[in-house]
Amino acid sequence: MQIGRVAGTVVSTAKEATLEGRKFLVVRILDLDAKDTGAYVVAVDAVGAGVGEVVLVASGSSARMTEATKDRPSDAVIMAIVDSWDVEGQTKWRKHDG
Amino acid sequence: MQIGRVAGTVVSTAKEATLEGRKFLVVRILDLDAKDTGAYVVAVDAVGAGVGEVVLVASGSSARMTEATKDRPSDAVIMAIVDSWDVEGQTKWRKHDG
Amino acid sequence: MQIGRVAGTVVSTAKEATLEGRKFLVVRILDLDAKDTGAYVVAVDAVGAGVGEVVLVASGSSARMTEATKDRPSDAVIMAIVDSWDVEGQTKWRKHDG
Amino acid sequence: MQIGRVAGTVVSTAKEATLEGRKFLVVRILDLDAKDTGAYVVAVDAVGAGVGEVVLVASGSSARMTEATKDRPSDAVIMAIVDSWDVEGQTKWRKHDG
Amino acid sequence: MQIGRVAGTVVSTAKEATLEGRKFLVVRILDLDAKDTGAYVVAVDAVGAGVGEVVLVASGSSARMTEATKDRPSDAVIMAIVDSWDVEGQTKWRKHDG
Repeated sequence: MQIGRVAGTVVSTAKEATLEGRKFLVVRILDLDAKDTGAYVVAVDAVGAGVGEVVLVASGSSARMTEATKDRPSDAVIMAIVDSWDVEGQTKWRKHDG
Repeated sequence: MQIGRVAGTVVSTAKEATLEGRKFLVVRILDLDAKDTGAYVVAVDAVGAGVGEVVLVASGSSARMTEATKDRPSDAVIMAIVDSWDVEGQTKWRKHDG
Repeated sequence: MQIGRVAGTVVSTAKEATLEGRKFLVVRILDLDAKDTGAYVVAVDAVGAGVGEVVLVASGSSARMTEATKDRPSDAVIMAIVDSWDVEGQTKWRKHDG
Repeated sequence: MQIGRVAGTVVSTAKEATLEGRKFLVVRILDLDAKDTGAYVVAVDAVGAGVGEVVLVASGSSARMTEATKDRPSDAVIMAIVDSWDVEGQTKWRKHDG
Repeated sequence: MQIGRVAGTVVSTAKEATLEGRKFLVVRILDLDAKDTGAYVVAVDAVGAGVGEVVLVASGSSARMTEATKDRPSDAVIMAIVDSWDVEGQTKWRKHDG
């Protein structure tokens, strides 16, 4: 998985029928110090993530292993909202510290 | 998914039989400001996208989860036409603003 | 899919039994102006492509969705021979113009 | 697979239900001399790996082929703890030499 | 597939049970002139490849389509030993010339 920050939304009316009602979020990929890497991915939301939240994104076929994405043409899914992470004994990011 | 702009078409007469009738579109990958990144992908169209339109492309096995691509040797599919997207509270692109 | 030019062949006697009789082709990946990008992939041929021809290559699990590659350990397949492509209204490459 | 060093943990309360109880580890990807490459991945632990240990990470659909990850939205798994590796006749890294 | 040279071995005692007896080889990825690219992958051996041999590596779900890797958490497999390859009419590498 990659760590990302939800930065926005993509609106699409004309889409594959099975994606009806799915929410496409723009996720900026973060490095381990919680800084933007410049990369992004558009992911389907499976956990009710909101703009500004830090999340985990799973890609590839694993992106279809949620209720929201099963058998659908989605190659990226937000499957967890991150509370915090630590690296080498240091807390690098914590919710509400953002 | 990646955001892209449909830039052209690829014509192929000799192809795997199951791809008969499928439309191969050249998609330029865009960044979040709607500028070309220089990368491209050839994707099968599942939603009737035309040249010039901004779309979402799904890759890998998820590219086979549409009516148009099911069980076919296609690793990229256009599964949505984009109306607009916003990032950090700003609308970055909107259809007809192009 | 990626656009590539068939540049050569790989010969292998000792291989997984299910790959017996399969043809491994060296494919140079092209940009949209039909120039080499420097990247390459070794792909199984599913459509009778010859050296010098321009082709489409599908990767990942989709590379197994042809008669030639079904259930085999191949992660890239040539599934179409390209006649031509155009981008932004210009024909960028046409067979026999090569 | 890639060789990595377990550098930390990601804490997530709100996640896809099937991931309940799974441990998300931050893994720094190493080169063949056991130095950090700067890349990282968040992987589910399938073998009881601890912070500081050197491991193998499998990605993509193969990341779901463990007891811990079966049918779950995880695209990276720690499936082995590394004792040592050698390249061109030299031991490049050995457990407890770290 | 990618062309690589088997450069060494990874030893792991603690691993997912289904990987018992599998051999993890370090493979350096080569360019079309048979020079190291600097990239590497750890792959399971399916064809009895030895250190120093030049091989093909398949990645992703296709890496599970061999007897040695079926249903196992391995995302890279050596599925062929290379005898030779030629590009643009020139033999770029041949076994025993290495």
